[in-house]
Parts: sequence; C-alpha cells; structure tokens
Amino acid sequence: MQTYLDCFPCFLHQALRAGRVATDDPHKVKQVLDEVGRMLGSIPMQSPPPRTGALIYQKVSQITGNNDPYRELKQESIAQALQLYLELKQRVADSRDPLLTAVRVAIAGNVIDFGVNRVFDLEADIADVLEKDFAICDEREFRDALDQTEEVLYLGDNAGETVFDRVLIETMQKKVIYAVRGAPIINDATYEDALQSGLDRVATIVSSGSSAPGTLLEQCSDEFRDRFQQAKFIISKGQGNYEGLSGRREPIFFLLKAKCPVISRDIGVNQGDIILKRGA
Amino acid sequence: MQTYLDCFPCFLHQALRAGRVATDDPHKVKQVLDEVGRMLGSIPMQSPPPRTGALIYQKVSQITGNNDPYRELKQESIAQALQLYLELKQRVADSRDPLLTAVRVAIAGNVIDFGVNRVFDLEADIADVLEKDFAICDEREFRDALDQTEEVLYLGDNAGETVFDRVLIETMQKKVIYAVRGAPIINDATYEDALQSGLDRVATIVSSGSSAPGTLLEQCSDEFRDRFQQAKFIISKGQGNYEGLSGRREPIFFLLKAKCPVISRDIGVNQGDIILKRGA
Repeated sequence: MQTYLDCFPCFLHQALRAGRVATDDPHKVKQVLDEVGRMLGSIPMQSPPPRTGALIYQKVSQITGNNDPYRELKQESIAQALQLYLELKQRVADSRDPLLTAVRVAIAGNVIDFGVNRVFDLEADIADVLEKDFAICDEREFRDALDQTEEVLYLGDNAGETVFDRVLIETMQKKVIYAVRGAPIINDATYEDALQSGLDRVATIVSSGSSAPGTLLEQCSDEFRDRFQQAKFIISKGQGNYEGLSGRREPIFFLLKAKCPVISRDIGVNQGDIILKRGA
Repeated sequence: MQTYLDCFPCFLHQALRAGRVATDDPHKVKQVLDEVGRMLGSIPMQSPPPRTGALIYQKVSQITGNNDPYRELKQESIAQALQLYLELKQRVADSRDPLLTAVRVAIAGNVIDFGVNRVFDLEADIADVLEKDFAICDEREFRDALDQTEEVLYLGDNAGETVFDRVLIETMQKKVIYAVRGAPIINDATYEDALQSGLDRVATIVSSGSSAPGTLLEQCSDEFRDRFQQAKFIISKGQGNYEGLSGRREPIFFLLKAKCPVISRDIGVNQGDIILKRGA
C-alpha cells in the first residue's frame, strides 16, 4: 500500500505516542517530533507506511535510548491473552464451523495494537469480532487452498495476538512456519514474544530479518524472502503486513480488522470491518 | 497559552485540512505537509499556537496560491447564521435572563470552526449550548464589570459566529468596538465578514492588524494594541483568542466552547464544556 496524505499527521501521532512510552522527558519527546517532522519531506508517496514506521521508531530509540519501549505492554498483552486461551479453544471446539471460528479468533487478537490506538477493550472487542459479519470473506478460496497445502507460512503481527494465532494454528492442523519481526518495533511480536505465547509448541518460529512494523520484503533476510516466494499458502495478519504486501501475487490471505481509516479505504471496507481476503 | 506536545500532530492535521480546502492538487498538499513538517523543529514550546497557525496558513497560501481558501465556507456560515438571527433574538427576548442567554448564544456561535474540526451540526450544537451548564461561569464579575463600563472591546473569532456576537452586542446595549483579523486566516472573521454579518449597525469594526488565528498582541498594529491596553472591558471569543491572551492582566472575559482537548486541559475543563471566564 502506498502512503496517503492522511498518513503524515498520523506519523507524527505515532512518534508522539511512542516517544511518550519510551521516556518521561518531554524535551526528548519534542526532539522526536522535531526530527520526525523534518523527515516527512523525504517520504515518497509510493513508500509503504511501515517503512516510515521503522524510521520513526529508530528515531525514538536513538533519541530516548530506549529500544523496546513497549516491552512491558507486550508482556501484559501476552499474559492477558493467555488467560483467555482455554476459553477461546473451547469456543472453537463448540462451534459448528471450527475453522471459521478460529479465523475469527485470530482476527479478534488483532485488536491488540498500540500503533494505531492505545485504547481498546479486549474482551468486548473479541465478543464483537466473533459475532460480526465479514466485510470481505474469501472463505471458499481459503478452505480450498488450505486443503491443498502441506505447510503454512504465517506472518505474525502483535504480541498477545500471537496467542490468538496459536488457536488458529492448532485448528488448521498443518505444519506452520510462524514469522516474527527481527527486532522490537512498537508492540509487534518478536521471537521472545512468540515463545512466551507458546507458539514453539505448534509452529516453527522464524524471524523476517526486518524490524519494520509490517512485512517489507526488501528489508527481510534472504532466507525469509526465499521462504516467502516459495510458500504455497501464506496467512498475513494485521494492517502492517497488509500495507507491506497488498498487491503482491503470492498466495496470501489477509486476516485483519480494519482499524485505520486510510487502510479501510484502501481495502474498500468500513473502519472496524473484519476481513478474510485473498491477495491480488 | 504555550504549545503542548499534542499540538504538533494537530499542526500537521491543520496543514492537511487547509491544503485540501485550498487546492485539488495532491502534490501541492504534500508540499504543504513537507514544509510544515520541516518547520516544526523551530517552534518553541513557549510560542502560543496561533503564531504557528499563522505560519501554517502562510505556507498554504504560498504553495497553493490561494490566500483565502475558506472564503466560500465563511460566506455559507454567515448566510446560515443570518437565517437563525431572528430566532436567536426571540430566544433572548423571551428568556428570564436575556444577558446570560445572549452570552450563551454568542458561545453557541463558536461551534462554527473549520480550524479544529470541519464537522459540526450547527442547530444541534446551538440547542446544546443554550441548555448546558457552564463549567466556569464568572457571571457576577461579568455583570459588575459590564455595568461599570461605557465601552466594550469585543474580540471576534469566526465568520458566522459574528452574527451570534451581534445578538450579544445588541443585548448588552453598550458602545462596542468589534475587532476582526487583519487578513483572511482559516475561517476567522475579517472586516468584510463582519460587515456581511451586520455588525456595522451595532459596533465599530476595527482590524487587529494581524492575521494570526488568535490575538497575538506583538503582531497587532500599534493602534489596536493601544486600544487593547486601555480597554476597561474586553470580551474574547473563542479558542484562538484565549490561546493568545490567557494569563494576561487586562480585564478580559473569555467566552468559548472548549473544543480542543489540549485547550480544555489548559483551562481545567472537559472537552465540550462552555465557559464564561474572567482572565488572570
């Protein structure tokens, strides 16, 4: 996805939020805003927003000396999600369509996002996602493609959401490679977060090799890129991965809740909608 | 009022909104964002936000060649307000406390504001302001000071709101000097807007000599500054004038609806509250 004009004020909002999480010193936060502001002129509209996201969080780290400001929030999210795990498993087991319910569970986990909006009510949002209609639901294609694959490349998104992904992975009963960010960025899941979520029990956890808050193939390791290009079935979780991968020709299914108005418009759905969408 | 950290993303939002009103060319809007972004680093926290507002709208004018992007919207606002004029006069006449009702009417007009938020429902907002409790109401001081003065210096805010101000001016029955911005800025009232609102029939319209979207005395003409410093009773309408004048020692009464979260916090009220507040 390209950058839209509305993304620019949002970049500054993100810088402000992350700066405040990273430090209590308002002078440092002001410096983050100054430097991110100065950087905006060098961002071409063709650049996917996660590329800018990575630059913003680099500035935050450099200026505040804190390279993992969301560490505690991530651990809280994982702990909170783990408490819901058995209940979510039960809901899937009790449902008439376990696979689609597990897809909904995985999307529900996508409400855990400190990049877009720090305010969310996890349990209320889960209940909503489990019931609401899909705005886009390429369910037939998803089932067919899953039937025909041996291995799933699963692109993770946020810490905590990882536990919800585990429910879907356990329901799919396929060999899964679970990709995480190469280094801390916002509240995106890293290797450590995936481990804490118990994903090592149900998948092989690999790093994308990049710390952008979304999959930007040109920033990923050669090893990851090869894996991506050879994959027969890819699940892409969340907005950041969509922003990096929309328009690509690989067999990708995007699972997300459209939280940002710009991304919602890009996809062609309303803000708040949930989608299971086959890539281009 | 100083600039707060939360103002910085908002400056970029304002640049985006004004750029889009001024031109249909997205490249020019991008250039506005780039240049405003670059400028952020040079804004000290002590600077009142309207000073930055003025710089932003100068950039918009320079880049788009449109030095009055809100002209049509202002004319629509005035026309809409004039249609309500007789009804508002009647409400004041019918009320048990015409002066306080007229103060409410003047504050209700303050919902017309394209700087903070382009979306408002004028009639619903008026109804709300006419009924709701004041969060701060220095009514006694206001009445006493008004009784003791011959002349009121009335600092106008937005076009359209001008018509609502006229209702208060007619109710006060004092000699009024009505101050407008020296040049177009956002939807702030200029001399022409005040004339179209019929303010020449009830007041002497003067220019502040500045085009900042708020009264910044150091940018005003010598003539206006003298007038201000000698005034015995000053009514300051809206957020921009508050931002420029809060903390000053002159006999100012601030009449406004707190629309912006940062200004609300600075005043110590909730967003959406209405106030009639004696200055420092």
